[in-house]
Amino acid sequence: MQRINVVMKDIMPLDEDAMKSARERQDRLTKPKKSLGVLEELSVRVAGITGDPVPRIERKAIIIMAGDHGVVEEGVSAYPRAVTIQMVYNFVRGGAGISVCAAHVGARVVVVDVGVATDIVSPHVINKKVRYGTENMTRGPAMSFHEAVQSIEAGIDVVEAEMEKGLDIIGTGEMGIGNTTPSSAITAAITGENVRNVTGRGTGIDDISYENKIEAIEKALMINNPDPKNPVDVLAKVGGCEIGGIAGVILAGAANEIPVVLDGFISGAAALIASEMAPQVKDYIIPAHCSREAGHRVILDWLGMTPLFDLDLCLGEGTGAALGMSLVELSCKILTDMSTFADAGVCEAIDNER
Amino acid sequence: MQRINVVMKDIMPLDEDAMKSARERQDRLTKPKKSLGVLEELSVRVAGITGDPVPRIERKAIIIMAGDHGVVEEGVSAYPRAVTIQMVYNFVRGGAGISVCAAHVGARVVVVDVGVATDIVSPHVINKKVRYGTENMTRGPAMSFHEAVQSIEAGIDVVEAEMEKGLDIIGTGEMGIGNTTPSSAITAAITGENVRNVTGRGTGIDDISYENKIEAIEKALMINNPDPKNPVDVLAKVGGCEIGGIAGVILAGAANEIPVVLDGFISGAAALIASEMAPQVKDYIIPAHCSREAGHRVILDWLGMTPLFDLDLCLGEGTGAALGMSLVELSCKILTDMSTFADAGVCEAIDNER
Repeated sequence: MQRINVVMKDIMPLDEDAMKSARERQDRLTKPKKSLGVLEELSVRVAGITGDPVPRIERKAIIIMAGDHGVVEEGVSAYPRAVTIQMVYNFVRGGAGISVCAAHVGARVVVVDVGVATDIVSPHVINKKVRYGTENMTRGPAMSFHEAVQSIEAGIDVVEAEMEKGLDIIGTGEMGIGNTTPSSAITAAITGENVRNVTGRGTGIDDISYENKIEAIEKALMINNPDPKNPVDVLAKVGGCEIGGIAGVILAGAANEIPVVLDGFISGAAALIASEMAPQVKDYIIPAHCSREAGHRVILDWLGMTPLFDLDLCLGEGTGAALGMSLVELSCKILTDMSTFADAGVCEAIDNER
Repeated sequence: MQRINVVMKDIMPLDEDAMKSARERQDRLTKPKKSLGVLEELSVRVAGITGDPVPRIERKAIIIMAGDHGVVEEGVSAYPRAVTIQMVYNFVRGGAGISVCAAHVGARVVVVDVGVATDIVSPHVINKKVRYGTENMTRGPAMSFHEAVQSIEAGIDVVEAEMEKGLDIIGTGEMGIGNTTPSSAITAAITGENVRNVTGRGTGIDDISYENKIEAIEKALMINNPDPKNPVDVLAKVGGCEIGGIAGVILAGAANEIPVVLDGFISGAAALIASEMAPQVKDYIIPAHCSREAGHRVILDWLGMTPLFDLDLCLGEGTGAALGMSLVELSCKILTDMSTFADAGVCEAIDNER
């Protein structure tokens, strides 16, 4: 836990001077003030995160954390567990949704095994395996406290290694059949919201599986009794390795002044863990979208965050984050590349104050 | 008008077979069915528009129509009229908001003078000038019926010329100081909505200018009495050359099976004109976003369209359309580039029917 504590201490408040400079520059660009709305605000936030009043976002990585879940035994998913590893190979070969989305926005895809149930044989997958899938959380903790810590550290390790290759922005992603179930459990545990209100259909389960899922989550919460004030305890008891991995990615991104674009519901559950550990991390998180999963809205409200868009996505993998990263990149290009009124010889507004 | 009639007759219903094929392929891709939400629907629509079940969107153009407005005499804008031509030069030099947005998504910018008040000396601006700015519509028609027809034909000409360079998708854009005023007038005339409810702050005017603007629109509607059943009459009496130009772009895009991504409020007013002329054009229009301008929501509701995103933009120029085009391009890449379950050796859902 010591390593994580060091990272948490490195998360600083945003750079107000850089934000002020960025805001002033936005107002001098050849457009009516605030006419680029959210894109202007985004660029100002990135200035604050990076400490650079004219930030550049070029080197982009989607970090996909993969893990399996013992709770799939309870019939909570429409897909067999084997799909986790099959999809990991699909990421590596470039045939998945995130492969296409990441290529479209010019981001690299970093695939990490934090807890897949079987060994992965690929030089393109980073091995940070904490365990071979979690335990069935309806019968006891998903993993030990120490393993939860290890999963968070795995995320920190990956960010630090990626920084050596150059890293201006991170998008979170995940793969793990069954992982909306622990995500709902985490959301219920931390926010106190009713299980049914934070539980969705995941990959598209039928009514019977949906009831199984709610029952499994309620049972897991009852049996394990996670302490909402201790987010690592929540992660260990009703979480998952990839969720811990993403929490580590978020903490390490913030500690290193890198904006972290959040994907959907599972990434949101990881953001809950990270922000309960270190509330100042929230300034570094940019939520890309609101997923179709009901619990995601509850998480965003709890975190006080407004997503950039809502395209009714619920795939995960980092697909929404990839689109969000592109908007963040564009927001910075607007700030840095647009001409000012003075440069372009364009008249300013007659009454430029609103 | 004969040329326009020919174009309107060329607008066909969407290709149902191509849409069916695209939908079936989406369901075989390595993701839970419908998990890419709006992106899946978009790709299916493009299949229907183009008649190609695996469409490719590569050659992208933002067509910016520029024109001036006599009604600026009434104190309806925060900017002097000279800014129209200054911004046209800013587009050409690459310093404007649309310059940055278009470059980000890999689209070319096509700048057209349909009605700027002064001569433009640039080989990079297409000269389709119908007149040197419109008349002040509070004192009579903005232009003649024949000029309104010419402005629509200008848009058709530009699309046909751009098709020779290769054109898979069009984004609409515009520049014209004062042009939210005729856009509100068109919206009120066609939808019957109260002027105040369709009138916004444009480039950011103060309360006095806002009241001037509403009064000018009400006066223009009263004096000219445009016939809501005759959209070209509405365009002539209370419209603008760039609005007619965009209407022509929309009609020609649809006639040539090219998806047209709609930008903000002014593009919306042009879409109202085009869809009143040829209702079947609506199938070819993809509204990118909802502008901060109040009238835009009224237009989208009238057209029965849901925008892709809302980033609180109100710049115009085609900035929102550029982002929308990128999403359409991505939607087609997903359809064409993702692996199927069979190709990737990934198990399908245990219960794949919902």
